[in-house]
Amino acid sequence: MAPQSRLLPPLLQVLRRCRASRSHFSTAPSLVSPPSKAVVYDEHGLPEQVLRLVDVPPAEIGDRDVCVRMMAAPINPSDINRIEGVYPVRPPLPAAVGGYEGVGQVHALGPAVTARLSPGDWVIPSPPSFGTWQTYITKHENVWHKVRSDVPMEYAATITVNPLTALRMLQDFVKLNPGDAIVQNGATSIVGQCVIQLAKVHGIHTINIIRDRPGSEEAKNKLKQLGADEVFTETQLDMKNVKSLLGALPEPALGFNCVGGNAASLILKLLKQGGTMVTYGGMSKRPVTVPTSYFIFKDLSLRGFWLQKWLNSDKTEDCRRMIDYLLGLVHEGKLKYEMESISFGEFSLALEKALGKHGSQPKQVIKF
Amino acid sequence: MAPQSRLLPPLLQVLRRCRASRSHFSTAPSLVSPPSKAVVYDEHGLPEQVLRLVDVPPAEIGDRDVCVRMMAAPINPSDINRIEGVYPVRPPLPAAVGGYEGVGQVHALGPAVTARLSPGDWVIPSPPSFGTWQTYITKHENVWHKVRSDVPMEYAATITVNPLTALRMLQDFVKLNPGDAIVQNGATSIVGQCVIQLAKVHGIHTINIIRDRPGSEEAKNKLKQLGADEVFTETQLDMKNVKSLLGALPEPALGFNCVGGNAASLILKLLKQGGTMVTYGGMSKRPVTVPTSYFIFKDLSLRGFWLQKWLNSDKTEDCRRMIDYLLGLVHEGKLKYEMESISFGEFSLALEKALGKHGSQPKQVIKF
Repeated sequence: MAPQSRLLPPLLQVLRRCRASRSHFSTAPSLVSPPSKAVVYDEHGLPEQVLRLVDVPPAEIGDRDVCVRMMAAPINPSDINRIEGVYPVRPPLPAAVGGYEGVGQVHALGPAVTARLSPGDWVIPSPPSFGTWQTYITKHENVWHKVRSDVPMEYAATITVNPLTALRMLQDFVKLNPGDAIVQNGATSIVGQCVIQLAKVHGIHTINIIRDRPGSEEAKNKLKQLGADEVFTETQLDMKNVKSLLGALPEPALGFNCVGGNAASLILKLLKQGGTMVTYGGMSKRPVTVPTSYFIFKDLSLRGFWLQKWLNSDKTEDCRRMIDYLLGLVHEGKLKYEMESISFGEFSLALEKALGKHGSQPKQVIKF
Repeated sequence: MAPQSRLLPPLLQVLRRCRASRSHFSTAPSLVSPPSKAVVYDEHGLPEQVLRLVDVPPAEIGDRDVCVRMMAAPINPSDINRIEGVYPVRPPLPAAVGGYEGVGQVHALGPAVTARLSPGDWVIPSPPSFGTWQTYITKHENVWHKVRSDVPMEYAATITVNPLTALRMLQDFVKLNPGDAIVQNGATSIVGQCVIQLAKVHGIHTINIIRDRPGSEEAKNKLKQLGADEVFTETQLDMKNVKSLLGALPEPALGFNCVGGNAASLILKLLKQGGTMVTYGGMSKRPVTVPTSYFIFKDLSLRGFWLQKWLNSDKTEDCRRMIDYLLGLVHEGKLKYEMESISFGEFSLALEKALGKHGSQPKQVIKF
């Protein structure tokens, strides 16, 4: 990433002048945010090449705006995909600020704000919205949802994109009852870890598939400590009578696939007659391949899940209720996952880690 | 197939003796069916090797049985698969009689039959049931459904397995309105031809995919005469902006796949956002391959259809109502498809044709 001292590009200078002139013509003294620092991009490309840290001038705080001092925001894979330009929903260019979820403290309120918010309250953009990689954000009060402040801020910053995906996928496709089982691949991912824990809270068993790699025994133990009933490597499932491995567990009616290729085929093999596989990611970059007989005789259904679509469909109240529920579980110690906090000043290092350039790393959460 | 003169195997001789002895000990004179000829198999294998024509002795007609003189029965691919032992639902061995659908005339009625049936009435087993490749069948009255006799008997004999599949698939997955479009591959199959005509009756447009082969222009014209809106060969659809080919037709919300491989991928490409593909066959013997993005961002659903499952689920009345509807369309000239009638004496030739040993041939229908 370019150093912070790099000159602002012409467009941002124009932007700054516009804002300055707007407040100049205002009849009443305007409330303005503090100056901010933001990680932005003007074109799509490799994040390490196109991202820049810029100074953003003070912004006017409108009557119903809330100015928030950001405390923490993660680097999610979908943030990377937006920067690369391969994600279908992206902020407009140029001067797009990176990031999509995060948590901050209320810094200042516009005079006509009706929400019950006070300076110091913790808020998250909910549904999440573009541009959380900056130190101050000023947006309409409707954007912000007040959350409890008695959980680690890393959880408040990351509670939407991954945990909410896990929760919705458990609810939206197949009616599950206590004692039922589900199967998933990519089980060590944060969504995977959340699926295990949320299923457990509801008495649902989980059958988990992980990659074969050095340390897979350790990974198995970690997932079992979270509540996983069974954890298999892909190689372990490379056998004919795979269901014999399930022991007393019921055949799963629902499967979650975030890998594709062989790892998806294993889910199809393990699902019960009439089961459903939901694809929400494709980490192996390999497609899902389905023998015809699985559709006709095994009556499997294959669906997809994209949180973005759900968030777009006027579900704000549902979304916020679920966020509160999830943060409640965090508070009770029933929902946890590994993250690494890193200061905003070290954004480049966090980005490298998020891009996998330092091997397998925990989720990177920027602290401002 | 073994010649008719071949000695009956020991098991069938035993069967004959049992039936004979049962009538011997009966106190009242029993009503019995005429002797019958049947195409049977005692083990799974290649149809031309395991099928035999046998004489079946007269069977007792129970109080509520109906004895039917079969007139016509088709050789369907699923009949072949049952004989090969690769179809999940099969009649018990040994002495399994081939065939699954067909039409006959009422020959004799048990004394306590309550259905409004008279000798000479046309009846079909409905839901269809095992063993239609024989000259006389005696089964409980509940098996039989009286059908209109003013249509060609080949249609009455074949109205369930293929046309009912087409009708159900148009009804069971996506709510379609007049003006909507669907897409299908294998469009020259009987199900494919029925889909085109049934869709047209309901004002639904069809986009059809056929194989590249000599005579594909003639096949296109035939399908268009049946009411197809568009017919493309797979090669024609091997392009980037494939939807530009649709012209004024709406993007299809529903697709039917009976081929797999590339022909299934083309359906996925043509489906609209949120569309559904239903797989009901796999003629290419290649699996269905789905890029992850089709699930996540295009929100496609992939399902399967198996008429057998639907027939098993206590839908007899629905099934019969639809059969009547379909035969009504046949009578009105709105539903037709190519068949070849062949006499029972030439069963071996019909079988060879059904097995594709004489190139592409119409559906083979045995006339008894």
